[in-house]
Amino acid sequence: MLDRNRLDRVLTNLNQTGLDQMIISDPLAIKWLTGRRFYAGERFLGLYIAKDREPVLLLNALFQFDEDLGVRKLLHKDTDDIIPFIQSVVDPRKKLGVDKILTAKFLLPMIDRGVAVRIENGSPGVDRTRAVKDEEEKELMRISSKINDMAMEQFKGLVHEGVTEREVAAQTLDIYKSLGAEAFSFPSIVAFGANAADPHHMPDDTVVKEGDTVLFDVGCMYHGYCSDMTRVFFFKKEPSSVQKKIYNIVRKANEDAEAMVKAGITLHSIDKTARDVIRAEGYGEYFTHRLGHFIGLEDHEAGDVAENNMTLTEAGNIFSIEPGIYKADEAGVRIEDLVIVTEEGCEVLNRFPKDIQIIG
Amino acid sequence: MLDRNRLDRVLTNLNQTGLDQMIISDPLAIKWLTGRRFYAGERFLGLYIAKDREPVLLLNALFQFDEDLGVRKLLHKDTDDIIPFIQSVVDPRKKLGVDKILTAKFLLPMIDRGVAVRIENGSPGVDRTRAVKDEEEKELMRISSKINDMAMEQFKGLVHEGVTEREVAAQTLDIYKSLGAEAFSFPSIVAFGANAADPHHMPDDTVVKEGDTVLFDVGCMYHGYCSDMTRVFFFKKEPSSVQKKIYNIVRKANEDAEAMVKAGITLHSIDKTARDVIRAEGYGEYFTHRLGHFIGLEDHEAGDVAENNMTLTEAGNIFSIEPGIYKADEAGVRIEDLVIVTEEGCEVLNRFPKDIQIIG
Repeated sequence: MLDRNRLDRVLTNLNQTGLDQMIISDPLAIKWLTGRRFYAGERFLGLYIAKDREPVLLLNALFQFDEDLGVRKLLHKDTDDIIPFIQSVVDPRKKLGVDKILTAKFLLPMIDRGVAVRIENGSPGVDRTRAVKDEEEKELMRISSKINDMAMEQFKGLVHEGVTEREVAAQTLDIYKSLGAEAFSFPSIVAFGANAADPHHMPDDTVVKEGDTVLFDVGCMYHGYCSDMTRVFFFKKEPSSVQKKIYNIVRKANEDAEAMVKAGITLHSIDKTARDVIRAEGYGEYFTHRLGHFIGLEDHEAGDVAENNMTLTEAGNIFSIEPGIYKADEAGVRIEDLVIVTEEGCEVLNRFPKDIQIIG
Repeated sequence: MLDRNRLDRVLTNLNQTGLDQMIISDPLAIKWLTGRRFYAGERFLGLYIAKDREPVLLLNALFQFDEDLGVRKLLHKDTDDIIPFIQSVVDPRKKLGVDKILTAKFLLPMIDRGVAVRIENGSPGVDRTRAVKDEEEKELMRISSKINDMAMEQFKGLVHEGVTEREVAAQTLDIYKSLGAEAFSFPSIVAFGANAADPHHMPDDTVVKEGDTVLFDVGCMYHGYCSDMTRVFFFKKEPSSVQKKIYNIVRKANEDAEAMVKAGITLHSIDKTARDVIRAEGYGEYFTHRLGHFIGLEDHEAGDVAENNMTLTEAGNIFSIEPGIYKADEAGVRIEDLVIVTEEGCEVLNRFPKDIQIIG
C-alpha cells in the first residue's frame, strides 16, 4: 500500500533539488513506496509522482496484479510504444526527474520526443529520503542484525581442522534461514590467513591452519532489510603479537568511530576518526577503502562514510563502520558493525563481542 | 584479444544505421568483441569504437588487468568525473551511438555537456551483428546443445514415483557440470501434469502422478554459450488419446517450421508455419507466445521469431523453435530445438528424439 508519509518526504526532497515531478524506475524504491516488488527486467517500469497529482504506476500488462496499492495503474503491452503512456501522465511544461537506472532504450526517445521541457537525474532526492529510515525500517534493521549476531555465533563453530573456506561458506545460508532470515544480503565472505588481507577475497579451497586469522564478513535479509557484519577470530592458538596489535588497532578505530557518531556531523569526520587511529600506528596505507556504506533494502545504498564526503549525518541514517588493515605478511583484520544515527549519538545494531576469541 | 573481424562487422552495421562511432557498455557485447568479461556493476564501463580510430576501453581502475587485449585502456577512478574521459576519445562533431543499457546517471551528463552533436541508441547495429554467429561461435553452440542432449537423457531418469519437480530440478546442475558445462543458461524448468500447461511454471512441490506429462525446459552454458531445449515425456503409462493428439500437433508444428528455415525468409513466415499447424487443429488460442528467440552468449538475445517480425533471416542466425499448446484440462506440451540458419536450410542442434517416450 502506498506509504503517503514516504511519498511526501520524497516530494519535499525532490522539490529542494528543483523537481516537482519524477518517474521512479528502481524496483526497490518502488517497493519502499508501495510495498510491492516488481520484477520487470528490461521492460519499462515507472512510478510517476508529482507534487499536486496522484501517483500513477506505468506497468507492463505482463506484471498485472489485483492488489490495491492505492495507486492508479496504467498498463502497456510489449508491442506498445511507451512514450504516449508517459506523455499522458507527465506535465510537459515542467522539468521531469528520471531514475539514475533508467536505460538509454527508454530515455533517448523520451528526450527526442520532448516528454518534458527538460529531463534530469532525480535519484539524489529519492536516495536522500531513503537514507533516513523510519521507525518500521529501523525495527526490521534491528531484527536483521540480531539474526546476524546469532548466526555469527554458529558460523565460528563451523571452523575445524581440515575445513575449507568454501565448505564453511556453503553452510551459512541454511543457518540464516533456520534463524528466520529469507536470504543472504550478499554471499558470505569467509577468509583464512593471508586471504583475510584481501578485502575482496571470495571463499576458495584454502584449508584453515593453526594460527590463522578467520574472517567472516556476512549478512542476511529480513523482510527485505539487510544486515552486514565482520568479525575476525583466531584458529587454535593465541594470536601472535603482531596479529594482536593489528586487531586492537582496528578495534579501536571501529570503537572510536562509533563513539563519535551522531546527527549533524560530516561523514568525512567519522571516516577521519577511524583512519587517524590506523594512521597514527603507521598502518594508514593498509586501510584501502572507505570506512562505511549506507544500507537498508540494499546492502550498499547511496551514501558513503568516506574522507571526501562532507554531507552531514541525519538521525535515522544507517551505515556500516568497517575499518580494516590488510597486510598479507602480518594480518588481515576488519571489524564491522551497523549503526543507526540518533540526535545524541548512535545505536550500534551488532552486539556480537569484539574481544579476541580463539576458535576451533 | 580484440576480434578485428567482429569489430569490422559491427562498424559496417553501425554505419548502415548512420553511426560512425559508439560506446558499447553491455559486458557481454564487450566480451564478444575482446574476449574478456568485466563485472563493473553500477560503475561506468565503455568500449569506444569508431570507423577510423582505434578502439579504447574506458575502465574503472578497480577493474584494471594486465592481459593485452589489443585495445588501449583509459582508466578512471571512482572519484573522477567520467565526462572528460569520454570527451578525450569521442569525436564531438559526429553522432555518437550509446548502448541501450547505458543508464541515465551517465547518459544525462553526456547529453547536457555535449559530448557529441547527437546521441542515439546504437545497440541495433551491435545486436544485428551478434545475431550472425561466426564459425567459432557455431562450434561452441553445437557443443553446448550436445551436452544438453546428453543431459536430457539423464534428466528423464530422475523422475520416479514420489518425486517432486523441485527435487528433480535440484539435481540438474550437477549433471550439467559432470558433462562439462559450467553453469545453467537458465534455471531448469520441470513441470508435471497441469503445471506443464503454464509456460512460466517454476518447479514446486508437486509430486509426479501416473499419466502425467513431464516437461523439461532446460539449458546449460559451455564457454559462455547457451543451450535451450524442451522435451515432454509421459509418466508410467501410454498417453491418453488427447495427450497424444496434442503432442503430435506440437511436434508437427516444430518439425514443419524447422523444415522451412533457411536464409532470406522472414522470421514472421517461420512463426506462421508453426502457428498455422496449431490453428488448423483448433488450438491456436492455446499457443500463447512467439515461436522462438535468438540465443548465443545470452539465453535470450535480441531477435524474435514472431508473427509481427518481418526481418529476414541470415545464415549464422541461431534461434529456438518452440511451439506449445497449453490447455490445463487436456495437456501442456512444448517441443523446442535450437537451429543454425544456413543458405540452403538449417542445422538442428538438438538430436534428442521427439518420439513419444514413457518414463518412470
